[in-house]
Amino acid sequence: MSQDIAAYTAPFAEVAHQRTVFPEGLALDCGATVAPLAVAWRAYGTLNAARSNAILVCHALTGDQYVAETHPLTGKPGWWGNVVGPGLPIDTERYFVVCSNVLGGCMGTTGPREPRAEGEEPWGTDFPQVTIRDMVRAQHRLMEHLGIGRWLAVVGGSMGGMQVLEWAATYPEAVGAAAPIATAVHHSAQNIAFDEVGRAAIHNDPDWRGGRYWEDGSLPARGLSVARMVAHITYLSEQALTRKFGRRLRGASALTFLEDVFEVESYLRHQGSTFVRRFDANAYLTITRAMDFFDLAAEHGGELAAAFRGASAAGTRFCVVSFSSDWLFPTEESRTLVRALNAAAANVSFVEIRSDKGHDAFLLDEPDFHRTLGGFLAGCAERLGV
Amino acid sequence: MSQDIAAYTAPFAEVAHQRTVFPEGLALDCGATVAPLAVAWRAYGTLNAARSNAILVCHALTGDQYVAETHPLTGKPGWWGNVVGPGLPIDTERYFVVCSNVLGGCMGTTGPREPRAEGEEPWGTDFPQVTIRDMVRAQHRLMEHLGIGRWLAVVGGSMGGMQVLEWAATYPEAVGAAAPIATAVHHSAQNIAFDEVGRAAIHNDPDWRGGRYWEDGSLPARGLSVARMVAHITYLSEQALTRKFGRRLRGASALTFLEDVFEVESYLRHQGSTFVRRFDANAYLTITRAMDFFDLAAEHGGELAAAFRGASAAGTRFCVVSFSSDWLFPTEESRTLVRALNAAAANVSFVEIRSDKGHDAFLLDEPDFHRTLGGFLAGCAERLGV
Repeated sequence: MSQDIAAYTAPFAEVAHQRTVFPEGLALDCGATVAPLAVAWRAYGTLNAARSNAILVCHALTGDQYVAETHPLTGKPGWWGNVVGPGLPIDTERYFVVCSNVLGGCMGTTGPREPRAEGEEPWGTDFPQVTIRDMVRAQHRLMEHLGIGRWLAVVGGSMGGMQVLEWAATYPEAVGAAAPIATAVHHSAQNIAFDEVGRAAIHNDPDWRGGRYWEDGSLPARGLSVARMVAHITYLSEQALTRKFGRRLRGASALTFLEDVFEVESYLRHQGSTFVRRFDANAYLTITRAMDFFDLAAEHGGELAAAFRGASAAGTRFCVVSFSSDWLFPTEESRTLVRALNAAAANVSFVEIRSDKGHDAFLLDEPDFHRTLGGFLAGCAERLGV
Repeated sequence: MSQDIAAYTAPFAEVAHQRTVFPEGLALDCGATVAPLAVAWRAYGTLNAARSNAILVCHALTGDQYVAETHPLTGKPGWWGNVVGPGLPIDTERYFVVCSNVLGGCMGTTGPREPRAEGEEPWGTDFPQVTIRDMVRAQHRLMEHLGIGRWLAVVGGSMGGMQVLEWAATYPEAVGAAAPIATAVHHSAQNIAFDEVGRAAIHNDPDWRGGRYWEDGSLPARGLSVARMVAHITYLSEQALTRKFGRRLRGASALTFLEDVFEVESYLRHQGSTFVRRFDANAYLTITRAMDFFDLAAEHGGELAAAFRGASAAGTRFCVVSFSSDWLFPTEESRTLVRALNAAAANVSFVEIRSDKGHDAFLLDEPDFHRTLGGFLAGCAERLGV
């Protein structure tokens, strides 16, 4: 593997992302300000005259704004093409769907691999550590720019779900409905530990060069690849891995003991090696840190319910979704969230979807989940006369 | 971290292990022969005149023969000092307890870091891939050397449990009783996947040098450290990690965003960095491969019960133990084993110990487990008049 991956030493192709630039920049939780602030975003469907049919989709750690169209780097379909589109649960014939690349990301929004300003050097390791709340603040700028006063709904899975919760906590009046999916109000010690393995692998790669790999166009591809491999295991249930691969061998007999002899190894290596062509290592470090530090209760004096009092008063409707075989964000984490929403007298429904696909289920074809989400959004739209 | 660990470039201290050398060597499953074969071992207690009180302890992946005494490299107590000793479940006042370093290991038994023969170069990457059955064959040589015809019991957890099962399958007449603990008849796709992450981290370390790091005294310390970190997470339950660390910060406030800010990160880094001082990277690769390829059913024409017909006929008594929070070798894997033992009409008892400590529970103070193991061995001894 190392040979293959080490060959990807050139930075990935430059893409002209659709962006909006805010020259005044953004003040961050850590005290620093990034200026200018660029937000790369995509939209699908048509904003109605009342501007009341807009849905914000928040992407996960390694997702981006290309939700429902061909990805400009990989050439693959959008990551939620089975959920967002005409006639789909997030119906682009009915809703105006917006998604922006997160602050700290690497697909056009201000982050470590973006120039500080037009024609300047990339931020690199000087990029300040951002929080999930900072990401949401950047999205709020875009919302103002688009002239939208209130989202019909804010929807997202995994880290996208953290942003959904942060929207409800920070801008409750702007959130008509919220669908936090396969997420939690903070990372567990185990989640932090797995992230730390990935970060250690990146830091250990000599091509990381203290984070200044971009200066001569190199990439810590091997470290980033290991980070992706370990993360990928946590996205699948043991059943899903076993069903996909079991202990099947790739042609060779066990006793030849070649590298890459189990199919699951080959698959993981492929996952790792394709990832490095589209994702920046410093962005990976920045975003995983943001997830690890996210702690909605701590932001509200240690009382989780306090985070949702505003949303409760604003009438925000919540639909919390978990998946039974998700061991990265287990159902128990969603129950904790639902208890806090109930304690804040918020309007909340909760569905645990039976699935054996693990955390990744929110990206896959899960008809029960799609019906749940589609029904929730349609109900919210109907209630608001959209 | 990388700075600290990179400083451990010198190979770890040489220790004069107690060894027995078999000049004729050992023919392996892969077709190769290693000759001479050295087996490093320790024993505790006294072999009785009838030679009927001998218990073989089989160690796990990163264990070794220093079961119940100070470790010569780390200076720490033996890894099963709470189980093996006077008055303990494996009572050295009653039993003669033997443990040998596994074939392919790095504490004196023939393996990648040992010289091919006295005064020669280490095997390094030329060391052939061994199997769990090869490890057991090497232990069988030691057994003959010690003049023991039948073990009162063979006992081991995790990879040690795989050896226990292989003993019962390969040398049933030599196994009076067998206690496979927190183990399985093969690795799951998820187990293989986590191992593959560790191996990729080692292979990616430029100091691995295609496995020839020993030639100039260097070490792939950073890769091995990441491998240890990810493995360590799988040894603990989420509850155990949370109880130990939760989301506690090390002094700093979250927004300083220093490296190593969560206690769990610091702990894992410490685990990784101490490990590289006592464990050889090529041995780690060799042994994890042996675990991944272990497949007791496949060795017996795809019928697991066939592996135990000999032990059933020989009257071997089995005590299968699992731990409720072990997600690396879940109880369900032990149930599969027990079903096969029952199908072979073997004498088997099965206990799931309630514990929230995860896979590592077999090494920790778990009174129910200790009572179970001690009682099982005492019953076997009594039955044989030991």
